[in-house]
Amino acid sequence: MGGKFITLEGIDGSGKSTQLRMLTGELRQLKYDILTTMEPGGTPLGRRLREAFLETEETVAPIAELLLFAADRAQHVEFLIKPALKENRIVISDRYADATYAYQGAGRGFSKEMVNQVIEIATGGLKPDLTLFFDLPVGKALKRTSKNDESDRKNNRMDTEESDFYVRVRDAYLELAERDSNRFRIINADQPVEVVHSDVVKIVTDFLGD
Amino acid sequence: MGGKFITLEGIDGSGKSTQLRMLTGELRQLKYDILTTMEPGGTPLGRRLREAFLETEETVAPIAELLLFAADRAQHVEFLIKPALKENRIVISDRYADATYAYQGAGRGFSKEMVNQVIEIATGGLKPDLTLFFDLPVGKALKRTSKNDESDRKNNRMDTEESDFYVRVRDAYLELAERDSNRFRIINADQPVEVVHSDVVKIVTDFLGD
Repeated sequence: MGGKFITLEGIDGSGKSTQLRMLTGELRQLKYDILTTMEPGGTPLGRRLREAFLETEETVAPIAELLLFAADRAQHVEFLIKPALKENRIVISDRYADATYAYQGAGRGFSKEMVNQVIEIATGGLKPDLTLFFDLPVGKALKRTSKNDESDRKNNRMDTEESDFYVRVRDAYLELAERDSNRFRIINADQPVEVVHSDVVKIVTDFLGD
Repeated sequence: MGGKFITLEGIDGSGKSTQLRMLTGELRQLKYDILTTMEPGGTPLGRRLREAFLETEETVAPIAELLLFAADRAQHVEFLIKPALKENRIVISDRYADATYAYQGAGRGFSKEMVNQVIEIATGGLKPDLTLFFDLPVGKALKRTSKNDESDRKNNRMDTEESDFYVRVRDAYLELAERDSNRFRIINADQPVEVVHSDVVKIVTDFLGD
């Protein structure tokens, strides 16, 4: 396929969604044909699924969650990512399959083999051409996400569990980046937003051949 | 687990849902503790998923459909079927994993290996103790389902495709029944509803030990 498929990954609070907006603005000024998207929720079906399983008080079985992220991805690949790549567009997605390895695999503790099977089925083997991993220490990321939710601070046991979970997720991302160093770039996300932005723009424009 | 898990399978128009209602009434009169359920849609999450992917005009990628049925099933097994079996109840489900082998495997043409992986992940290997397959010729089943929709009759190409699809699904069910003959009972659904009912009651009460 003629286009390029770029994904942004990182734990919650890593700033990747802000960076995606800034990067897209910059690339469009440079006249690139960009399609930005996200997982879950990149298609109408995906948005309805997102509502059905993320915006609910009901407990969702971890296996059901794994399969729902995969279903969202299968629809996303088939009806959005692949068609755009065929039209030679640059597709930039806020999260993709690496998030499942990190969150469901390392975070929830499912075996790599099971997660791999589900991802292969959902994507048909479609891999990004470039993946930016926005890295920063878990403590700092959690501070960013809980800024507006001071009440959470009281529950120390929850904090510790949450922190352990994100440490596993971050470690899994770093392991993926090491194993697939051709595709991954690790961004130091523990810097001012404009500094991160200029790092990101440099990496992406170099990659796109400017 | 102490309970019994019974599933009803068959192509659309086989009458299994009507038979489930009649069977449940009969078993409750005999003082059995019955929990009836269905796939998809046996849990609140499942019902929201069902709306999100079945009650829509949007095209759903066949792989996404496979994964969504599996997600529905994972939630169903975890939060409804297993807990009820632990309480020694008799769970009767209108469709379960065999429907995925028949509809997504044989019907949509996915490989048995892929379908098997997805089912194993979703169910953790939980199999029914007894499965009733309601069998009748595809032509008769289709006549039952299209009774109220005469406009469909005009589109002959569609009719042929639909018929071929259901022939593959029925054949797959018959193959499953043959391969797993200890678990399966084939019900002749091409008989008056009261005759089918008495066949079903006999099989199920024999199985439950009366």
